[in-house]
Amino acid sequence: MTEKITMAHGSGGRSGADLMEKVFAKHFSNEVLDRMEDAAVLDISGRAAVSTDSFVVTPHFFKGGDIGKLAVCGTANDLAMMGAVPKYITCGFILEEGLAIEELERIAASMAKAAEDAGVRIVAGDTKVVEGKGGLYINTTGIGIIPEGRNAGAAGCKEGDAIILSGTLGDHHACILSARMGMENDIKSDCAFLGHAVEKIYAAGAEVHAMRDVTRGGLGTILNELAEASGVDMELEESSLPVRPEVRGLCGILGLEPLYMGNEGKMIAVVPEKDAEKALTALKETPEGRDAAIIGRVTGKGEGEVIMNTPLGGSRIVDMLYGEGLPRIC
Amino acid sequence: MTEKITMAHGSGGRSGADLMEKVFAKHFSNEVLDRMEDAAVLDISGRAAVSTDSFVVTPHFFKGGDIGKLAVCGTANDLAMMGAVPKYITCGFILEEGLAIEELERIAASMAKAAEDAGVRIVAGDTKVVEGKGGLYINTTGIGIIPEGRNAGAAGCKEGDAIILSGTLGDHHACILSARMGMENDIKSDCAFLGHAVEKIYAAGAEVHAMRDVTRGGLGTILNELAEASGVDMELEESSLPVRPEVRGLCGILGLEPLYMGNEGKMIAVVPEKDAEKALTALKETPEGRDAAIIGRVTGKGEGEVIMNTPLGGSRIVDMLYGEGLPRIC
Repeated sequence: MTEKITMAHGSGGRSGADLMEKVFAKHFSNEVLDRMEDAAVLDISGRAAVSTDSFVVTPHFFKGGDIGKLAVCGTANDLAMMGAVPKYITCGFILEEGLAIEELERIAASMAKAAEDAGVRIVAGDTKVVEGKGGLYINTTGIGIIPEGRNAGAAGCKEGDAIILSGTLGDHHACILSARMGMENDIKSDCAFLGHAVEKIYAAGAEVHAMRDVTRGGLGTILNELAEASGVDMELEESSLPVRPEVRGLCGILGLEPLYMGNEGKMIAVVPEKDAEKALTALKETPEGRDAAIIGRVTGKGEGEVIMNTPLGGSRIVDMLYGEGLPRIC
Repeated sequence: MTEKITMAHGSGGRSGADLMEKVFAKHFSNEVLDRMEDAAVLDISGRAAVSTDSFVVTPHFFKGGDIGKLAVCGTANDLAMMGAVPKYITCGFILEEGLAIEELERIAASMAKAAEDAGVRIVAGDTKVVEGKGGLYINTTGIGIIPEGRNAGAAGCKEGDAIILSGTLGDHHACILSARMGMENDIKSDCAFLGHAVEKIYAAGAEVHAMRDVTRGGLGTILNELAEASGVDMELEESSLPVRPEVRGLCGILGLEPLYMGNEGKMIAVVPEKDAEKALTALKETPEGRDAAIIGRVTGKGEGEVIMNTPLGGSRIVDMLYGEGLPRIC
């Protein structure tokens, strides 16, 4: 019989301790976590980046990833976007009664692997159990260290900067949508850690004004956020936006716009014109960035307007996503 | 009409940004958070303590507190128990569709106040929306700095140490239970930040071997955890355990054992015999510690056995809580 999560696992007593042993300690074991203290003790010095994110995606497992991999990569990516090297991560689990413990263990194993790949250590955790139907939510909070000389931030975009996108749009979103609708196709989530790609850009000697991972709200939304924070206008070339044919096909059928679809392994880097080719070349040498392209530029000081030039010679305003989008993609 | 949370608030687009403005920015505003970056950038140096906790308590509002106050105090307390001075906190919200925005705002306001009282700054946040019936979960992750010379840890208990409890057992647990059962009584949650009390103990010059807040699983469970981690046995005096008469009354009616009931504003401090009176006096001078008492001692090296001497001259083994406890008290 499949062993399931019960309210007793959330009581703070022996059953919770058993679950801790059997699932979390088994996969997450490291010298900090094994001390089982109320808080982890870490040596941190310098400028630290801290980010928190909760993950509620359904289904929990999908082509190219799962909620656990997403929870580690998503938070580590937020740190990397500030130019930080992710070091530590905490995991808060909210488990619904009835969740199969085997499923939880697969997710924990996936998180452990993702953490190893990203070079982060899981240093603290917490588990609560609530009524429900076997669902699960994961919060991850990450801490990274920003090496000297890096100053990437939303407000850093400057006139003339090139906007580089690391790869194809919409993959994660289209994958989750396909899984929910029971569609048979080959669309895989792009769920991946972006920190190695970021390090390549810096190692190539490129200056970086701003970075953002393309998640909820899609490219359209994040460019609006950056343009607004920096007080600049931006211009995109629609023909330069990479989208996989199978994702484009799905979007065509469902009337979706890849500009507002979330990814989980793509980023934009806003770099000075002089460093654009350097950064692009570096990015293309990484598995996460092999489809990278320069998709537009910062046109000058402004009110945060993002304009897209269409292949037919027209242009239109790209606004933020308003309304629903697809819920629970991350 | 009461404005409610909808799936659109979780889309990452404009509606999410509106919610951010109206609720979170309004109450949490500070220079770090206002930058609206993917990650907060902080200057941290030295030994840092990091802790994460998710809060799922129902009802969301109760006598003496609410889920927001609990989320801030609970995580800040975990840091304080390591001797750390809490500095930063992140908040991850998982909102169920249908939650009244006014309720969310009351909770955010309460968190802001609790953060101010505890001297912590809310530096990063995230909001997700899921299907449901107006519920809400909050993850808080905290970072604190441990001043030089402090070395409190679960494994630090030594033979002869005094075990000091900061106040009455079971208040929070009994309050939540009363609210759930619709019982009319005056039992208030003890939900409070314990860091000021911890600072008083250190300021009095007491050495501290271990501290723990008495939460899920109750005093019985945490003493077992400390005894096991330190490889010592402990002895408690049942007659010395402070319990409010109204809480004792409720326990009597319902057959509950205060030893396994969770508090949210009580702690134990394990200190060398020579410093016991010093620490007790310091604790008693704080509002959180006015009912503090020495409740037992570390008897010597051992297998982690906790024995309780009863007022009638007998003794019994205090085990960890096994099984349900009361779910969702925090």
